[in-house]
Amino acid sequence: MLTRIDHIGIACHDLEATVEFYRKTYGFTDVHFEVNEEQGVREAMLKINATGDGAASFIQLIQPIREDSTVAKWLAKNGEGVHHIAFGTDGDVQDEADGIAGKGVRVLYDSPRRGSMGSRITFLHPKDCHGVLTELVQKATT
Amino acid sequence: MLTRIDHIGIACHDLEATVEFYRKTYGFTDVHFEVNEEQGVREAMLKINATGDGAASFIQLIQPIREDSTVAKWLAKNGEGVHHIAFGTDGDVQDEADGIAGKGVRVLYDSPRRGSMGSRITFLHPKDCHGVLTELVQKATT
Repeated sequence: MLTRIDHIGIACHDLEATVEFYRKTYGFTDVHFEVNEEQGVREAMLKINATGDGAASFIQLIQPIREDSTVAKWLAKNGEGVHHIAFGTDGDVQDEADGIAGKGVRVLYDSPRRGSMGSRITFLHPKDCHGVLTELVQKATT
Repeated sequence: MLTRIDHIGIACHDLEATVEFYRKTYGFTDVHFEVNEEQGVREAMLKINATGDGAASFIQLIQPIREDSTVAKWLAKNGEGVHHIAFGTDGDVQDEADGIAGKGVRVLYDSPRRGSMGSRITFLHPKDCHGVLTELVQKATT
């Protein structure tokens, strides 16, 4: 079951400058930085609010670190802006993805990959989701 | 203070078909429909989760009802997809907007307008927000 908006993923050219915009403009100061080599991005997770399922919602800022990363290509085409949205699961993300695949939506990964803060993630094809690149997130067990 | 992701606004061509996609695919069944004549849209608010500030986060699906609405023009240019993001305030939305304007971000409305479910809303210029059309929402008092 999908129990929260886990995050909104926003592509940017300069991670530090964009984090500083969100901090200065809105006062969002709870920030976690990491690099995802597999995805070819640096990212910042800004915690916005707690959610009723015991997790949280974040703004995820992502900056490509390689020109051949999918986010780099997306930025070159679209410029800075919202890149994807992510729903959080309360159970196993692959089980959730399998259920959704059974409804005719293409799942982009054969098996979950590592997402922010130790999460397990997969993506749904935007053409099957009314134009929205959609991620599923199972947060790390604590 | 901004205390939640209030909603993600997604533009679509066919509101009923898109609501049905979210219902069938993800099981989101808590849906509120309304028309905003001023904005020139029909919309559906799908509640996704409760938030720690006592409010909730939604997916907002929006379909233009007039060809001269800003969303109609946006759809013609971009196709279906994420149109804007919205943060919720814990206080007066105009006070929040004034504070943000003082940091050099253009606010698009002179005074708040009516948003979904009786909320008071305003928007920030996407060019001042790293490419993201950003809404501020003060939810209706209950």
